[in-house]
Amino acid sequence: MRAHILTIGDELLIGQVINTNSSWIAEQLNLSGIHVAHMSTVSDTREDILSALEQSLKFDFVFITGGLGPTKDDITKQMFSEFFERKLVTDENVLKDVTEFFAKRGVIINELNRRQALVPEGCFVIRNKNGTAPGMWMQKQNTIFISMPGVPFEMKVMVSEDVIPKIRKEFDLPFIYHKTVLTQGIGEGILAEKIEAWEDALAAKNIKLAYLPQPGIVRLRLSTSGKDQSLLKKNVDEEIKKLSEQIGQYIYGFEEFGAESETLEKVVSQWLRETKQSISLAESCTGGYISSLFTAIPGASDIFKGAIVPYTNQAKHELLNVDEKIFEQYGAVSSQCVELLAKHVREKFGSDLSIAISGIAGPTGGTPEKPVGTVWVAIADNKNVYTKKFLFVNNRQRNIVMTAQASLKFLLDKFRENR
Amino acid sequence: MRAHILTIGDELLIGQVINTNSSWIAEQLNLSGIHVAHMSTVSDTREDILSALEQSLKFDFVFITGGLGPTKDDITKQMFSEFFERKLVTDENVLKDVTEFFAKRGVIINELNRRQALVPEGCFVIRNKNGTAPGMWMQKQNTIFISMPGVPFEMKVMVSEDVIPKIRKEFDLPFIYHKTVLTQGIGEGILAEKIEAWEDALAAKNIKLAYLPQPGIVRLRLSTSGKDQSLLKKNVDEEIKKLSEQIGQYIYGFEEFGAESETLEKVVSQWLRETKQSISLAESCTGGYISSLFTAIPGASDIFKGAIVPYTNQAKHELLNVDEKIFEQYGAVSSQCVELLAKHVREKFGSDLSIAISGIAGPTGGTPEKPVGTVWVAIADNKNVYTKKFLFVNNRQRNIVMTAQASLKFLLDKFRENR
Repeated sequence: MRAHILTIGDELLIGQVINTNSSWIAEQLNLSGIHVAHMSTVSDTREDILSALEQSLKFDFVFITGGLGPTKDDITKQMFSEFFERKLVTDENVLKDVTEFFAKRGVIINELNRRQALVPEGCFVIRNKNGTAPGMWMQKQNTIFISMPGVPFEMKVMVSEDVIPKIRKEFDLPFIYHKTVLTQGIGEGILAEKIEAWEDALAAKNIKLAYLPQPGIVRLRLSTSGKDQSLLKKNVDEEIKKLSEQIGQYIYGFEEFGAESETLEKVVSQWLRETKQSISLAESCTGGYISSLFTAIPGASDIFKGAIVPYTNQAKHELLNVDEKIFEQYGAVSSQCVELLAKHVREKFGSDLSIAISGIAGPTGGTPEKPVGTVWVAIADNKNVYTKKFLFVNNRQRNIVMTAQASLKFLLDKFRENR
Repeated sequence: MRAHILTIGDELLIGQVINTNSSWIAEQLNLSGIHVAHMSTVSDTREDILSALEQSLKFDFVFITGGLGPTKDDITKQMFSEFFERKLVTDENVLKDVTEFFAKRGVIINELNRRQALVPEGCFVIRNKNGTAPGMWMQKQNTIFISMPGVPFEMKVMVSEDVIPKIRKEFDLPFIYHKTVLTQGIGEGILAEKIEAWEDALAAKNIKLAYLPQPGIVRLRLSTSGKDQSLLKKNVDEEIKKLSEQIGQYIYGFEEFGAESETLEKVVSQWLRETKQSISLAESCTGGYISSLFTAIPGASDIFKGAIVPYTNQAKHELLNVDEKIFEQYGAVSSQCVELLAKHVREKFGSDLSIAISGIAGPTGGTPEKPVGTVWVAIADNKNVYTKKFLFVNNRQRNIVMTAQASLKFLLDKFRENR
């Protein structure tokens, strides 16, 4: 099964938008046993789209995103109609979806948006749960063409919930098994060196390893394919057991096959929920970032009491009772300061646990003693406060993200096992 | 001048790496007046690379990255040699560069790395100041092929310092001009209807319009090209003036071409800095997200005092003095509640302005009266508090993002003009 991923849009060709759709789709297809052989991007012009569709006939599948908006610059649907020689007709289900979509927002559907319900006659419609442009599944010769909106959020739901399940149902794909080991606190290079012998032995078991690094985190994905499901799973689990013996202290969780990505904040939230504990935060240099991570998860109010972002020393003093002498003696970026922040924020919100953070995110504010990237973290429960110093990098955004990851891992390390 | 950007590498096709090279090169070419007509990605295989090179002959320029490493899986150079029918010969300058590159790191060059100095005979060599793989510039028929390493840092220096200057010297390029209008608070479809007549008249002035939607925001890009720089700019500016008369209330800023993306939080931060005002936040349903937006910007402490995330009614009461009767009478998601939150958070932090938010992000917590997506926002200065109700969608993450955008726009609308 060979696939072509075709992205349509002038915004990609002038470099205004980075093509994240292609890589995301490619990953999903690979994990389903479909080989992506080609990717291409063309402009919103008749000639380029038709030529790209024509050249796609040598593949088994073509995944297309973009060009489905209601506006005049979007012409993918018209080109579909022309390429498949089918006229555009109104799909009543889609019209209902689009009408409801606008009604919910208190808007009466206009003519332009009504046209979103047009699809080539006889096409299999993939309804859009999050927007107005429907997906379209059509076949020409031996090639299946799947057109989806370019808005990542709308496209991703279609791929995961409709397109891949439909392909799995209709085609005999090999069984693929993968499991991802989630690590925090060790860089890719050092990790690779540490597990070199283990990694070299994977090939004999037909297991492929991928390093998926992101700031503060390295995910290790083991994947394998074949006929015997239970053997595949057994092989992978055995290797993960061996790996855990070597680098266990960096592992914070696992991602199971087909499951949603397990972020550190999800692992922490889940553990808090299971142990019926709540948390509150005092975030100085992370500026509410960790709070936004917790609250992005549905049901956050079960475990999250709130946060204070005391961005100034005055706020640290007035809102969280940090004695002003602390700033003079140790500075706001100090073990002493975060210890008080963690204690007091926990009391203020009446939570079981707390995290407090103070650091120098950069680009300015660093000193020879405390360079940019210096961060103090404190975690507290009703008995203890632990503090830890980290030294990250010379990049503001990365420092914020890495601090968040490191703090959450610190919390798990100190408190998860003790209960 | 029509260009093709060809990226080579299996890591792109399995979705392990996002293709940022293509968008970066595209932007640089556009700035230089070269139109990128096509982008494609192929694997490191002989057949795919040769076929891609063959199909590139219909363009004026082909910019190629990837496949130039010393390891066996990288074969771009061999394919170049085959496609141009030139044997590979050692370039003495490159051999010197590579030898020095390793010497600097205390390593004696090995046979594998010595091969990095091989190039097709007669090719124009672009020396690599930051790595070992040289760039190659060759011509076949009327097409110029430029092959560069896939490492972004190495490639970018070559493009900026060597490739584009050489193209500018050898070719007469047109001038291209872009400007982007940033809007918030109006959907793409309704916006398009409102400005239809204006949009239709753009073609006569050789201006193209693109709609670039993202949650809560629609960016409108006007682009044009020609010989007379000042005329192009004047035409675009005139059209933007006409547009502003029609949809001025939704516009929060402009993006000049080549400049960094102007987010709403940057526009607000810049305005606060210029007017020497500070801000604080009380974020319930957005959970620290707006705070994290402000603090992601370097120098945030100039304008940002801090935030409180009172995620429970108790925290709203105890930390921000919302009378408990408010919850009984109106609920936490009410004009009355956010008004008090905005007033009190401003006082707590001693800031000039404040934003307070309370809403139902979902997926649970909605009622017939206040469905998921209902959000109350209050903004305050030393004299007034304004409140506004919004009704967004049935998706937690989008509600958080859209609330942030809407609140920042609300703040600009009410307070920016008055000072």
